[in-house]
Amino acid sequence: MRQLYHYPLCGFSRAARFLLSEKHLDYALVYENPWAPSDDVLDQNLFGTLPVLVDINGASVCGSSAIREYVNEAYPEIELIGRDYAQKAEARKLADWFDFIFYKEVYFPLIREKILKRFVNDMNRTPDPASVRLACSKLTHHMDYVSWLIDRRNWLAGRDFSIADIHAASFISVLDYLGIITWDKYDIARGWYARIKSRIGFRGILSDNLPQIPPSAEYSNPDF
Amino acid sequence: MRQLYHYPLCGFSRAARFLLSEKHLDYALVYENPWAPSDDVLDQNLFGTLPVLVDINGASVCGSSAIREYVNEAYPEIELIGRDYAQKAEARKLADWFDFIFYKEVYFPLIREKILKRFVNDMNRTPDPASVRLACSKLTHHMDYVSWLIDRRNWLAGRDFSIADIHAASFISVLDYLGIITWDKYDIARGWYARIKSRIGFRGILSDNLPQIPPSAEYSNPDF
Repeated sequence: MRQLYHYPLCGFSRAARFLLSEKHLDYALVYENPWAPSDDVLDQNLFGTLPVLVDINGASVCGSSAIREYVNEAYPEIELIGRDYAQKAEARKLADWFDFIFYKEVYFPLIREKILKRFVNDMNRTPDPASVRLACSKLTHHMDYVSWLIDRRNWLAGRDFSIADIHAASFISVLDYLGIITWDKYDIARGWYARIKSRIGFRGILSDNLPQIPPSAEYSNPDF
Repeated sequence: MRQLYHYPLCGFSRAARFLLSEKHLDYALVYENPWAPSDDVLDQNLFGTLPVLVDINGASVCGSSAIREYVNEAYPEIELIGRDYAQKAEARKLADWFDFIFYKEVYFPLIREKILKRFVNDMNRTPDPASVRLACSKLTHHMDYVSWLIDRRNWLAGRDFSIADIHAASFISVLDYLGIITWDKYDIARGWYARIKSRIGFRGILSDNLPQIPPSAEYSNPDF
């Protein structure tokens, strides 16, 4: 069986899960704490970053963009990057937007304040409300850009559902799990996320429920 | 003529330059300040991040990983990612190591302290010696891992020169330009970087010389 080493509230891990599910590829999830990676993960990736995919052919693929490109090359039947250079460039640019810029400006500061400071032993536990405020204010800009794109397109990168939607939904859904997204402010983005929530490939992510960090009230509700 | 919008001391921009040169593709460089992107760049990429490639066929490709995959697909004659899934996964994993982890732990804190605080007007200019010390201590771990890999392989990802070497050399060379790398501490990595410096595709990067930020004494010297 194909295995994916992941952490449920890791945006990169979710992107790999969502991608595999949309490709109709079966996989078993192996739970990892990102702040205490197991020897299995470290053997394949010295830096211990998630996700790590071990495919049925034995291929070991580490990291969000490597997994995205590998899965697309090895299983081309369902095209999720794009059909020509322009589509592919647009989809990869928008996927990278979440992996790099959204991650840096919004996701990581909030994860640090809401999760890491709670669970990582050797971390400074003093809350930093200024950095939460800054990240939430940046979040508004990013969500507005999602709305702006969706107002002009069917999916984020154009007519077809793609890796851009996968990466965006994966990172946004972690913040939604934590109750950080005020959907009333983002009507158009909410319509897009409702369509994401109704996809079969997203069901696994919507069923996440960590004992120590329960999901927000409307997290799995398709009518939110 | 193909155009690459870049900033000379941006690791992502350097990775695209080095890649294009290694692929024997001609291009004109268009200088950009990453903290004040031009309308040309913003038209193609709302977040203004570099690099941006405008190819001779009109394709506009934004960002390091999108350019890497695009150039590899559009110009497959010289293979720089890998010949099979295992090689490709290894090369992409190591390229991502520099784009994500080296960037976050080492490169960005040092660029913030050494460049951004000097040139970006609305930035807090108070030096943060603790974050410089931390980044330099992390740098040692990363350079040791470069040495560890090169001690076992010809190039970073295996027998062949690849995008792993391109991304590693691109980020490391920015810090070398700023005089941050103490090469005496890293004999094996130094041997690898000497081979990088001797490559024709790296000559453009070695000739960089910004008026306000001159390169370190040995920056362009192949015998350093």
